[in-house]
Parts: sequence; C-alpha cells; structure tokens
Amino acid sequence: MQWTKVLGLGLGAAALLGLGIILGHFAIPKKANSPAPQDLDLEILETVMEQLDAHRIRENLRELSREPHLASSPRDEDLVQLLLQRWKDPESGLDSAEASTYEVLLSFPSQEQPNVVDIVGPTGGIIHSCHRTEENVTGEQGGPDVVQPYAAYAPSGTPQAVNAAKHGIAGVLVYTDPADINDGLSSPDETFPNSWYLPPSGVERGSYYEYFGDPLTPYLPAVPSSFRVDLANVSGFPPIPTQPIGFQDARDLLCNLNGTLAPATWQGALGCHYRLGPGFRADGDFPADSQVNVSVYNRLELRNSSNVLGIIRGAVEPDRYVLYGNHRDSWVHGAVDPSSGTAILLELSRVLGTLLKKGTWRPRRSIVFASWGAEEFGLIGSTEFTEEFFNKLQERTVAYINVDISVFANATLRVQGTPPVQSVVFSATKEIRSPGPGDLSIYDNWIRYFNRSSPVYGLVPSLGSLGAGSDYAPFIHFLGISSMDIAYTYDRSKTSARIYPTYHTAFDTFDYVDKFLDPGFSSHQAVARTAGSVILRLSDSFFLPLKVSDYSETLRSFLQAAQQDLGALLEQHSISLGPLVTAVEKFEAEAAALGQRISTLQKGSPDPLQVRMLNDQLMLLERTFLNPRAFPEERYYSHVLWAPRTGSVVTFPGLSNACSRARDTASGSEAWAEVQRQLSIVVTALEGAAATLRPVADL
Amino acid sequence: MQWTKVLGLGLGAAALLGLGIILGHFAIPKKANSPAPQDLDLEILETVMEQLDAHRIRENLRELSREPHLASSPRDEDLVQLLLQRWKDPESGLDSAEASTYEVLLSFPSQEQPNVVDIVGPTGGIIHSCHRTEENVTGEQGGPDVVQPYAAYAPSGTPQAVNAAKHGIAGVLVYTDPADINDGLSSPDETFPNSWYLPPSGVERGSYYEYFGDPLTPYLPAVPSSFRVDLANVSGFPPIPTQPIGFQDARDLLCNLNGTLAPATWQGALGCHYRLGPGFRADGDFPADSQVNVSVYNRLELRNSSNVLGIIRGAVEPDRYVLYGNHRDSWVHGAVDPSSGTAILLELSRVLGTLLKKGTWRPRRSIVFASWGAEEFGLIGSTEFTEEFFNKLQERTVAYINVDISVFANATLRVQGTPPVQSVVFSATKEIRSPGPGDLSIYDNWIRYFNRSSPVYGLVPSLGSLGAGSDYAPFIHFLGISSMDIAYTYDRSKTSARIYPTYHTAFDTFDYVDKFLDPGFSSHQAVARTAGSVILRLSDSFFLPLKVSDYSETLRSFLQAAQQDLGALLEQHSISLGPLVTAVEKFEAEAAALGQRISTLQKGSPDPLQVRMLNDQLMLLERTFLNPRAFPEERYYSHVLWAPRTGSVVTFPGLSNACSRARDTASGSEAWAEVQRQLSIVVTALEGAAATLRPVADL
Repeated sequence: MQWTKVLGLGLGAAALLGLGIILGHFAIPKKANSPAPQDLDLEILETVMEQLDAHRIRENLRELSREPHLASSPRDEDLVQLLLQRWKDPESGLDSAEASTYEVLLSFPSQEQPNVVDIVGPTGGIIHSCHRTEENVTGEQGGPDVVQPYAAYAPSGTPQAVNAAKHGIAGVLVYTDPADINDGLSSPDETFPNSWYLPPSGVERGSYYEYFGDPLTPYLPAVPSSFRVDLANVSGFPPIPTQPIGFQDARDLLCNLNGTLAPATWQGALGCHYRLGPGFRADGDFPADSQVNVSVYNRLELRNSSNVLGIIRGAVEPDRYVLYGNHRDSWVHGAVDPSSGTAILLELSRVLGTLLKKGTWRPRRSIVFASWGAEEFGLIGSTEFTEEFFNKLQERTVAYINVDISVFANATLRVQGTPPVQSVVFSATKEIRSPGPGDLSIYDNWIRYFNRSSPVYGLVPSLGSLGAGSDYAPFIHFLGISSMDIAYTYDRSKTSARIYPTYHTAFDTFDYVDKFLDPGFSSHQAVARTAGSVILRLSDSFFLPLKVSDYSETLRSFLQAAQQDLGALLEQHSISLGPLVTAVEKFEAEAAALGQRISTLQKGSPDPLQVRMLNDQLMLLERTFLNPRAFPEERYYSHVLWAPRTGSVVTFPGLSNACSRARDTASGSEAWAEVQRQLSIVVTALEGAAATLRPVADL
Repeated sequence: MQWTKVLGLGLGAAALLGLGIILGHFAIPKKANSPAPQDLDLEILETVMEQLDAHRIRENLRELSREPHLASSPRDEDLVQLLLQRWKDPESGLDSAEASTYEVLLSFPSQEQPNVVDIVGPTGGIIHSCHRTEENVTGEQGGPDVVQPYAAYAPSGTPQAVNAAKHGIAGVLVYTDPADINDGLSSPDETFPNSWYLPPSGVERGSYYEYFGDPLTPYLPAVPSSFRVDLANVSGFPPIPTQPIGFQDARDLLCNLNGTLAPATWQGALGCHYRLGPGFRADGDFPADSQVNVSVYNRLELRNSSNVLGIIRGAVEPDRYVLYGNHRDSWVHGAVDPSSGTAILLELSRVLGTLLKKGTWRPRRSIVFASWGAEEFGLIGSTEFTEEFFNKLQERTVAYINVDISVFANATLRVQGTPPVQSVVFSATKEIRSPGPGDLSIYDNWIRYFNRSSPVYGLVPSLGSLGAGSDYAPFIHFLGISSMDIAYTYDRSKTSARIYPTYHTAFDTFDYVDKFLDPGFSSHQAVARTAGSVILRLSDSFFLPLKVSDYSETLRSFLQAAQQDLGALLEQHSISLGPLVTAVEKFEAEAAALGQRISTLQKGSPDPLQVRMLNDQLMLLERTFLNPRAFPEERYYSHVLWAPRTGSVVTFPGLSNACSRARDTASGSEAWAEVQRQLSIVVTALEGAAATLRPVADL
C-alpha cells in the first residue's frame, strides 16, 4: 500500500498496492455436545495460550510456502484442499468447513510474450534489456510457477520514449529504491540470502487496480450468474502500460538519465545523482538519443477463486459471529505475505478444534475462520463474501479480526483497529509474555514502541487506523463491523525499510522467515496468542468486550482538529461547528452512561436476555456510522469516520475532504454547500449513534 | 394518491397527492412495576377488545376535528398539546411522551393575494371568475382557518391561455369530476349535507411535491442545523403554476371549450361533451377568443412542525419496538383524514395506558405511538423521524402499523401490508365481530369483499401492497420494516367514488362522519380493535407473529409473471431467468424449514434467548430486501420488491421497469445491461434473504 519511487520515461508515477484475497461457504452444524459456559473461562484461555505451538506454526509455514500459490493457480487450489482437510479433521477440525468459489477478473502476464523493458538505440536496435525474471539466488526463484514481475491490471501496450513529452506520459516503470527498502544497501553480499535485504534483481509485484473487489461486479457477488460490467466501462484500471523492475535495472536507466537534477527528496541510494531527463547523458552507457521501450502483454482472465470458511458453532448465541480471516493467495511463495498469517490461522483452528472435538469447550458465540482468495488482486475474495452475505454479516458479526502478514519483524506488536476493539486487545496482551529477552508482557513491550497519551487512560499503546491494505477493508468500510489487524513489526530505530524488503518478490520464502524475520517463530507465536486470546474473549465473554466509549476519544480529537485547523475558515464562510460540538458531547455522555449501566449490571446477576440487549448495543454501534449515501464517488466506503481522507486536516474525512476542495472557492459555491452537507452527515451519524447508546426504551 | 381529471388550458395534467404528517421525541422510562408475561395473554386481549369504546372514539373525533388544523397552524400545535396531555395522564397515559419539532419547508397560498382563476375576454376584462373558496354550506367552510384551495408546492405565476400551445403548457387546472367522485351526481340537493357526495364548490387540496420528506433536507433530519439544499436545486416541485377548482367551476370552463371531442374515457358527468380546445365555443357562454387566466401566489415557508411520540416500555425486550402511527395535520377540519385515525390512536393509547397505569399489564416489547406532523405536504414528519433515527429504528423495530383514514366507508376491512404481517392480521380479525348485521367476524366479512386464492391457504382475504400514500412509506421503503395500513372501506357494488367524496375539502367534517360515513362509529371501533389486537400480538407474543414464509407466495407470483410475460423477451436477448428461479426456490425452502423449526420449538419449552434469536431472523427478514444502491434515481426507495413499478408486468419492480425501458432497444444496449443488473440485484437480495433464514450457525 505504499508508494515507491517511480522512474519516469516519458512516463509518470503509480502506486504499488499490496493486496490479496480468499472465500468459503457454509455447512450444517452438529448438535451441541459440550458444556455452555456463562462467561470467558480463564482455564480454557490458559490452555489455548499454552498449546499454540511455535514449532507447528513453523511447519505450517513450510508447507504453505513450499510452492508459489498465486490466486487461482493449481497450488492455490491445493491449499484450499489442505485447509478443508485440516478443518474437517475428526480430531482437530471445526464443526464444518466449506470452500466457495467466485468467478473473478484477474490479470496475468502472458507466458508466451513476457513483458519487456529495453533500451533501444538510435538505429532501432536493442542495446540493453532489463531482467525479465529475478535472479535464481536460492533455487526458488526459477521455474514456471514463479510469475514474472508485473503490474496487475496494467493494460498492454508498447510505449517507447524517454521523458519525450512531459505531459504525454505513455507508460510507467516502477521500482523500489534501496534507500526506501534496504536501508541504503544494494550489493549482493549485503542482501538476501546474506541478510533480509532485497537482492538487486528483486521486483515488487502488485495490483494496480484502484478499488477493491472483483472489477466486473461492484456491489454484486461474483457468482457466475451475476451481471458483469462491460470491460469498456470498468473504472479503476491504470490507463497506461506499467511495469515494475528491480533496482539493479533501475540503476542502469536512472543513473544514465540526462536533464536537471531531481528534487532532493527524490534522490535515492543507487549511487548516482538522479536526473529528470529528457534523454540520456552523452557520457553515459547509452547513446544520448536512445529510448526506453516498455512492452506489456498482461491479459485479463476470468478465473475461479475460492474462499474457505470453517465454523465453530456457538453454544449459546450461535447467531453472533466472531470472524477471523486471512488471505491465502500469494504473489510467489509468499512465506511472509500471507502465509505467516495462514500458518497462525491453521494453528489457532487446530488448538480450538482439538478442544472442541474433545468436548472440553464450545464457545458461547460462533467463531468463523476464513481463508480468502485473490486478496493480492484487490481484496477480492473477502469483498465478494461481504457482497453475497451483506445483511447476515452486518446483523450478526461481533467483530472481524484480520491477521495477514503476521510478522513483518520481531520487535513489537502492532495493531490497527477501530476504537471499540482497543480494550480487548489491551486485556489480551497484558496477559501474554512478549518474545525476546526480559519478562515483559506483549502490552508492556508494545507501549515502548507505539504509544500515546490518552486523556482517559494516560499512556497506552496506540492503535493505528484501518486503511484498505488487507481484507478488513470491506468489513469496516462497507459493512461497518468493528475490525482489527494484528501483526508483529519493526523496531524503527533499526530499519527504515518501507516494508520487509522481499515483499511481493520471489525472495519471500520460508528460509527468509526462518533465518531473518523470526528465527524460532516466537513472534509468530506471540501473534497467535494475541489473536487467540482476542477470539476467545470476543466469543466467550458474557458481556461483549467492545468498549464503545473509547470512540469518544477519537471523536473528541477529530472535533478538536476541526476546531483548530478549520474553525476560522468555516467561520469565515458562516459555517458553525456548534452542532458538531453538541453531537460529540451527546455521544460522550451516552457512551459514559452506558458504561455505567454495564458496570452496575456486572455487579448483579443479569439474565442472558438483558445482557444480549446490551451486547446488541455494543455490537451495532459501529453500524451507526455507516451512510451509503455519504460518499457516492468512493466505492464501498460508507463509514463516515474512516473513509479515505485526502484533506490534510486529521478530522472527519468527509469534512476534511470537502473543506480541502472548498478552500479556494467563494462562499456560496457548490463546494461550500458540500462542506455543509458533509458536516450534517457527520452530525446526523453521531446523533444517531448516541441515540442507539441510550437506554433502549428511551427510543 | 389518485389521478383526477385535468382540465387543459394551454395546460397539462398533474397528480393529486393525498399525503400528510406529525413527530415526537423520547423520554426516560420508569421502573418495571408490572408482571412480565411470557406470552400473549388472551384475557388482556379480551379486556382491550371490550374496552375500546365507539363513543369515546366519536368524542375524540369531535374534538380533533373541531377546528381546521393545517400542518404547523396554531390549532395543529394545540393538538400536539392535547396528545401530550392524554399520553401523560396519570390514570391512562403512557410511560412517557414527548413532542419533537422539525423545521420544514411547507407551501401555502398567500392570504393577501388569493389564487384566482378568471376568464378574460378579448378586450382584457374579466368576464367570469371561479370561486376562491368553497360554499359555506354548514357554517364550517368559512373563516380564516379554512385554507383556500391550492396545490401545495406549485410555483406562483400568472399564465393565461386556452390550449394555446399544445406543447407549451403554461399552467394546470385540476378538478374532480362527479363521474369519478360522486357516482355521477352533481346537484346541491344530491350532495353534502344531503348525502355524502361532494358539493359543487368542493375542491380537493393536495401536495404536488413528487417525493416525500422535507424537500430541503433529503436523507437528513430537518433539524435547524442540517444542511439545506438551495431552493434552485430542489427537484420534485411542479414546474408550472397549478390550481385545483371545484367541478362547478370546471363545468363553466369545460362545457364551453371548443375543438375536437375528448376521448371517451375522458368524458365525465358535467352534463356536456368534453372537448379538447383550443379556444371556446362560438355559441358558448364566453367570447370564442376569451382566455383563462390562472394566478397562483403560493409561498414557500420554513415552518416548525411537530411529531408526538409516546412509549410503553417493554417489560422483557424493551429494545424491540412495535410502532403505531398516524399523522395529525389535516387540510381543513380533516374529520376523516386524518382525525378518524387519530381518534382511534387516542382510544387505543387510553385503553392500553389504563391497564399499564393500573399495573395490570406491561407488554413484553415496547410499544411506540406516533402522531406525525405535515403528512399532507409529503409524509414529512414520519420521514424526518426515520432520517433522524435510521439505525436505531432499523435495528429494533418489529413492525410499523399505520392507521391514517380509519374509515373510508363502513363495508369491510381493507389492509395493505407486506406478506409477513398477513398472518397476524388474519389471527386478529378472526376473533373480532364485524360491525353491521349478522354475526360475522371481521375476517369473514372481509373475505367477501377482497379475496384471492392462495396456493397455500386456499381462499383468503387479499392484502393490498403498500405504495407511498401515507406515513408507512419511509418505514417500508427506506428502512425495510414490515409495515401495514389498516382501514374500513367501501362496498364497491354501491359506489365507484375514487375516494370518500369530501376528501381534502372543507366538507370533511365531524358531522359528515357522524351522519354518513360511520353513524354509531362501529366501523371505527372495528378498526381500533383490529389495530389493538395486532399491536398486542406483536408486542406480547413470545414468538413474533410475523410469518416470513408468506413472502414465498409473492416471490413465486413475481417469478411466474416474469417467466410468462418477460421470459420470451429476455431469452431473445440471451438473459436467463434460471438464477432467479433458483433463488426463489431457495427462499421457499429456507422459509419452510424455518417454519418447521419454529413449530418444533413451540412444542418444547425453548429458552428466551433461543426465541430471541429466532425472532431476530423473523424481524430482520424484511431488511434483507433493502439495497440502497438499487434505484439511485428513486429517492428513499431501497426495497427491491416494493419500489415503484412503472413497467406493466407485475413482477420485481427493478426488472419490470428495466425491461419496459429496454424493450425497444437492441441487445447489448445500456438498457439491456440495466436489465441484467436489476436481475442480479434481485437474485442477490433473495439469496441473501434465504441465507438469513437458514439455521444461524450455518452462516
């Protein structure tokens, strides 16, 4: 999801998206045969924590990443079978498991006509060619299943130029600079397999589709019978041919460019001064009037992609779902992305499944495990699943937990999520020992790396907010389900790598993880324990551990940013933030009062129906922030607090964006009307949210 | 909501909408002080049936219709106070009651400059004027509070023409023909106060706004702080001046018109041959080159309009709401429309409130009584209420019951509603004696007037479907809440009147009801008992009496119509109905299986949480048919089964409409793509609905 440096060649810039996907269907549960506990059982929790086994996670990862398993490939389908087999195991499986398949539009390079990037001399002959594949450093970078580096959904075409027309960009080359990914290192002896850094030939693949979900079936599940948009009407594909290359090849191109010096922030670690073109240096490796030819032969193909879903039926409230998921498909072997997450998914389902099959335990609520397909192409499996079961999921899902890349690095936990999940993650991580030296809890270790000063709690670990980088996106943005993404990550004092260096390359292999990312797999185990504890707390606690009052801090901070950074501007245009202030205050008061009522109830012996009603208020709060009419241009984004923010002020996104657009227009313009509309949308959502937190008979 | 005959005058046609409205806010409930029954208590039901008193309904009506109470008028506000007083009565009131006010855009004729319709002679002098007010026949048609007949939201202007330009229509005159409203009768001795027929001077007022809700705040509650659309950007107002007149005046104009004879279906009972113009007859009452001048001086005004809401807190599931409502505002005295409904609302709340205050009874679920404001202008109060509390209402409302005009005539019950409410209405009406001679139940009487042959039940009374004629519209179309509208109505063998003849005129008075519509008020009592029984069954039954499998008949009939009337056409364009067939079959099977599970559970002793989960499936089924992206052009209409149907085939409206538009275009056109999209939308909704009916742990 990050931007990489882009080599202009009569060309421009493009985003490198790191996405991916999977889905499944459902089956008939057996009869309840286990005790139905009233509340979270700490002994069971302890047992689960103990049984989550680092060695088994390692073995899962070895198997999952043994072969490349690009979405819809035969190996991807093999893994579907592997998941089904595990989840149907009589000793350690779930109540039921099923695969479900969508027919989705994917994009692949042509096997007959590989994409090429050549330098063409003045007479038309090829005088230099970029590598078509990554170097076979460990024996795993070769073979027919390693997909050639490409930019998925970039159109085919053969543009040829070198910055020929500043505003007539004909194609894009993308590369990852060693300054951004390798802490500046670039020589083979400093890179994998000698370190975790990216070898010079490594190329980051990615999807260049702007939205998410199957491109042909927006808002509809990609079942065979669904209406498909005519290809000519699909929006969100890159308009021009695009190709990623390694920094080794980028150096050949970039260090030979002519023209004015690029801005300082564009300079990197390729060992030369980066220039903007046009043309090549007279004293460089190529004739000055050489050109770059980019030939892209990507093909769009309708492919079958499967999700796998496994379920543990709840003993008491089977209609409340705790959803836990990760995608299954990778670009190549994908040991880190996504198999480090899938390895944990399998270990978690094994431990819980074993307790289930032994009759030791059955959760209060249902637990659903999901292995999504085709995430890398744009969260396709998870999105299609939410489109197919929109109402059911929206009515019944307690929370969605995503563990995609489980270990980026082994320094600290990192959690992204909506405010109501903060407390359950805190509770879980305070009770789990951190890997590494010392005797810190995951929580205490975490707070050293990411923290903030909360007006309510003082210093606490800080949760990031959810963008659209993995399969949680449709759950939070489209369905309004409280969501989180959990991983172990970097010590930023030790590396500034944008992401782990072999991300989306053929070097993301088992040995890479085993040797560099997490030897001993203790960080994997830490993430498994964290996720496992969160799952158990959400599925077994009598009172749902979603603390809705934690939204108050977010709202207050958005409000303050609006007041400080937009207040004067709005006043100038006669727009008052008064109603927003009132709405935030109302929310704060109602959330606090609800918290009080919960405390009081917890001291008594409330009956299950009373608690159910309260839990419904907690579960459904996140839905009250959805407005499918708020951002008509933003596909799937309905959450008025977490929609994409393009405005610079960190406040309610609709307000921030509208102000940013209106800023230079006159009072009374349509842009200012939109500011007022966005303000009303937020106020209405907050007032509506506060109304759902009131005692239920107050209407 | 019906069309009336329109007198063209260089003019055109317009719809006469019969709408209206009221809202309230909420209060803090007291502690439970009554027994909490597990299920519907038949003794309580019997008591309520007995205590609903025709005489008290009559007295309510007398008071409610004593003065004109146009939306936002002082008398309308007086009635807000009356309702609050009744609902806060310590002996017979509810747990709490509150008024809430919206600032909404209404339209009124100018008091200084009355709207006029004149015939202007060739020299420019006025040679004939239409009546500006209705004749003061009973002493109630005079006075400043009787609003001059007008077409609300029609723009001001003074067009003058007589069919001058066939395609340059400059203004519209609307009248109600005696053939349509008076069974052909038109002389004063045959009309009110000598019969129930409309006097010659009677004029039907109405709102000519195309959508519903406050015109300035679509999708936002019309609280003072909400963003308001610039008047120039409001859509849905009539484009040209429009004025309603009585048939007495219409005769003067129409019977003097020149030109070709109007089509036979346009001829009426004014005693002459209707001609199309242009110009007047040479041998008529006016010079042939006279013109008609229409001067409309309507004004748009921001006004405060209130809803009143009263609540009986549920003893066991206070977060489940049974909503019962009617509007309060009238055009003039509004004895029938809406006070005949409000008179019942007050009697129902008195009887239930008395049981409540005595400590005899408290319902399992909460009951909410609503008196909506400004319905006549476009369902404004109810719509703003649903906009303000969208999520809360959608999550928690079991059903919405509307009783607007409670008695159109005294022959038979008439119910409009979605399929799941059929069974509860049947159960209720089988147990209540019908008014009138004989010893029939309301059900047995009803089936004589409206019936159909159900494949499941045999001959049953037939429910109508819900359009947008009263305040149920936002509940069913915008929120997807199972809704119904209940009334007593005509024996169609005795009258063909489009609606009761004094509808929306100054002749809709207490005496009119008392003498002609329902002497003795036994039909009012029958409606009160029906509504009362339905309310009790919905609020007190352990298992919700919503029979979701009754949707199967509707779906099957829509499917059959699609197959029979569109199948060949679709096949021609390579569009298969196969997926729709599968989806309907799946729905049928899942609905039947759910019915089985309910029967089994009912035989055992299910715990309340089990039943709650099942009831949630029943309550929320209707929501699964909502798709806010299905009909982007149809404001508020999200229900894929009940959206407005313009196509002639009585099937899924999106499909019907899209086919009707595509019919004459080539395969591959955008119109045919839209047919496929609409088909997929319905299939997805039905598949999603079926998924919510499955056992909850099957996902």
